[in-house]
Amino acid sequence: MTHSTIAAISTPPHAKGGVAIIRISGPDALAVARQVFIPRGKAELCKERARYAIFGDITYEGRIIDDGLATYFPAPHSYTGEDVVEISCHGGVLVTRMVLRAILAAGADMAEAGEFTRRAFVNGRLSLGEAESIGQLLDAKTEDQVLLHSSRSRQRLKEAISDISDALTSLLASVFARIDYPDEDLGELTHEEIKAVLSGSLSKCEALLRTYKTGSAISLGIPTVICGLANAGKSTLFNLLSGEELAIVTDIAGTTRDVLRGEVTLGGVLLKLCDTAGLRAGDGVDTVEKIGIERALDALDGAELVLALFDKDALGCSENEALAERISGMGNVRLALITKCDADSTQSVPEYISSHFDEVFFISAKERPDEAKRLISDKISSLFTDGSVVLGEDAIISDERQRASLTRACESIRLAISSIDAGAPEEIIASDIERATQELLMLDGRAVSEAVVGEIFKRFCVGK
Amino acid sequence: MTHSTIAAISTPPHAKGGVAIIRISGPDALAVARQVFIPRGKAELCKERARYAIFGDITYEGRIIDDGLATYFPAPHSYTGEDVVEISCHGGVLVTRMVLRAILAAGADMAEAGEFTRRAFVNGRLSLGEAESIGQLLDAKTEDQVLLHSSRSRQRLKEAISDISDALTSLLASVFARIDYPDEDLGELTHEEIKAVLSGSLSKCEALLRTYKTGSAISLGIPTVICGLANAGKSTLFNLLSGEELAIVTDIAGTTRDVLRGEVTLGGVLLKLCDTAGLRAGDGVDTVEKIGIERALDALDGAELVLALFDKDALGCSENEALAERISGMGNVRLALITKCDADSTQSVPEYISSHFDEVFFISAKERPDEAKRLISDKISSLFTDGSVVLGEDAIISDERQRASLTRACESIRLAISSIDAGAPEEIIASDIERATQELLMLDGRAVSEAVVGEIFKRFCVGK
Repeated sequence: MTHSTIAAISTPPHAKGGVAIIRISGPDALAVARQVFIPRGKAELCKERARYAIFGDITYEGRIIDDGLATYFPAPHSYTGEDVVEISCHGGVLVTRMVLRAILAAGADMAEAGEFTRRAFVNGRLSLGEAESIGQLLDAKTEDQVLLHSSRSRQRLKEAISDISDALTSLLASVFARIDYPDEDLGELTHEEIKAVLSGSLSKCEALLRTYKTGSAISLGIPTVICGLANAGKSTLFNLLSGEELAIVTDIAGTTRDVLRGEVTLGGVLLKLCDTAGLRAGDGVDTVEKIGIERALDALDGAELVLALFDKDALGCSENEALAERISGMGNVRLALITKCDADSTQSVPEYISSHFDEVFFISAKERPDEAKRLISDKISSLFTDGSVVLGEDAIISDERQRASLTRACESIRLAISSIDAGAPEEIIASDIERATQELLMLDGRAVSEAVVGEIFKRFCVGK
Repeated sequence: MTHSTIAAISTPPHAKGGVAIIRISGPDALAVARQVFIPRGKAELCKERARYAIFGDITYEGRIIDDGLATYFPAPHSYTGEDVVEISCHGGVLVTRMVLRAILAAGADMAEAGEFTRRAFVNGRLSLGEAESIGQLLDAKTEDQVLLHSSRSRQRLKEAISDISDALTSLLASVFARIDYPDEDLGELTHEEIKAVLSGSLSKCEALLRTYKTGSAISLGIPTVICGLANAGKSTLFNLLSGEELAIVTDIAGTTRDVLRGEVTLGGVLLKLCDTAGLRAGDGVDTVEKIGIERALDALDGAELVLALFDKDALGCSENEALAERISGMGNVRLALITKCDADSTQSVPEYISSHFDEVFFISAKERPDEAKRLISDKISSLFTDGSVVLGEDAIISDERQRASLTRACESIRLAISSIDAGAPEEIIASDIERATQELLMLDGRAVSEAVVGEIFKRFCVGK
């Protein structure tokens, strides 16, 4: 527990805006703010005027440098759980910096990256999961990511975990009672009843674990490579998919002109798209082509989803066959897209395609773009998300740390169940349940090492 | 007068921060905010809870996307003078944009650049001068600029102008009374008394006009060129001056390697420094040198202050003489700096220097940097500022529009005085005084054309 008073610019510090906010948190927040901020009217910055925006002058070295609002949020009902004063001033880069400097001169320490949120966590205002989620909300690049890390989602996940861990904690108390007072009839649970609680908790853990598929598809995204011979329709498809209205698309030309990258949300999944140069048999005929092919193969190496395009009129071409062979081991899922197809195309595909790909689609990104997009979108959605999960409503886990904790919790619960079945001593059963509980508390951040906490808050910006 | 309700992100919209603010202003601000913002506790967004920061959920298309604070500032005691609600949310770029989108969907119009401040002006919450000053505060790059455009300075200028224009307006009423009721003894002022009021107003206008020297030196800056032969010590001086701790220095290498630019505050003056390549007689020996010299001459063309450096051991060099000749007509003020001098140097300078420069200094930027800096700083301060003006305390004008208005006001007052002396009819005197009053009201923005207003607010960012 720290007792210093910290301050930082909480709005973007390096860009000009109309308004900026400087946040002060800690036991001396009010005293520091009062040195810098002089109310214009009769209302004072004080407990009686808690949460009121008061207008006044901001002073620095005895001179008035700006006017603005100050709002006092007394502990514990503030973001950090400590006494907080937020001062808003005109949002010029330098004037904001001078207001911060005035506040530091009045006795506050400069906040470190993520220190406000860290204090909120330490003071029990946020669970670790919520804090992490806020960090990801700030970085969200798609609307689905915003929903995944919204306050509602954070709340739901916290509730879901508490629900399971509360059940296990209370179960553990019963088991310990049996151990401590073996001879007394405490009306405690039978082994069957213990198993029932464990099975219930296990299903809940497993259900939550299943949401990782959806959560990570939205949060981390699926590395996806579009490949095919020149003129197979790669760029048309890339543009069609990138055109998704609600996504932020970054079309950054690669270090060479032959690899385009973009991020797009399709079927509720963040695709990290990569459009490669034409792939041919061999290593290419000249240096430029060789480099292009090398880079395409590099991209394929890290791909999870491969979208291979084949011009319907070039299916007999040996180069296409070589392409199919070449990518046969790459990616977890490979979809073959036969391009430039007429409506209701039922063309048969060559064996080299059917044998190397998970599924084949007949599309025309040019003539029937909506249909092509829908086909691909539906497939991706069914591949990478769990349709039963409602984004922004249900508890969803989305990062590896959460997944690992839940997996270990499931294992411990399963162990506890088999310990009961094997007639193991109560102490063994208790220690299995305890380990599961521990994992869940860790997932929620209620029991977690200082190192992990440090690692998480380090990723925040200063002022959060 | 407009009756629409507008909204925009008031914090920097394109950068990530911990917190962002979306401002809503207009008659429907409260209704719009209530559609989007659902309080978590019992406190409602309403008149009874004016200026109170309420915690709650922010919804978009029926889903909760974030939580944050909403504060209602009822008209007329708000920034714009209209009903205003400020919603603060987590400061991710996309989540902030989604909150804005939710607010627009609830019926607000997207605010145009500067529209909040424009409404503040239209509703009499700010004078035009204050609004302009706020724009410059947001762009301030030096501490002096912040003080020049601080709320205190804005207030002082407004008071100074009102003081003069109130006196002239009341004088005008007296003169009109004499015109309308020539036969009655209204106890009105004598010609001598009118002259006394006019003289008093004239001195005040002239005093304010004199502050333009200081104001523009801080606000617009003085284009300054450092020139001299290679090895005269140009870079040492440039770095010494750029090292000013409180200035934001931008060392941007020019399009060629031979022109460095930077901004620095020295002696209360913003110097727009430009360090040129060595200047020689003739056009240079090769293409690169020719281009360097051409650019140096271009820079000198726009210079107000020229700092020409001469190595004390190369004063006899014919190239230095040629340099002095070359720049003799350039800049308003030319200072010769004899470099690499020992302490207490009293070396005599060649005629080509004493005849072409306003003043000569003996310095050593390397050995005695503090002394060199102080010498130059004091000279610049006495050249470009009015020492009697206290920054951040006194009324100071700093832009051309203000200067022009005041100049015309002074002319009209002088005309009125000479009209009285010449025994001109009262109507002539009245019209002179009226023109002066008009200019002062224009300076304050109380009488100004729609076109000028539009031009001023166009320069603001959206959200201000």
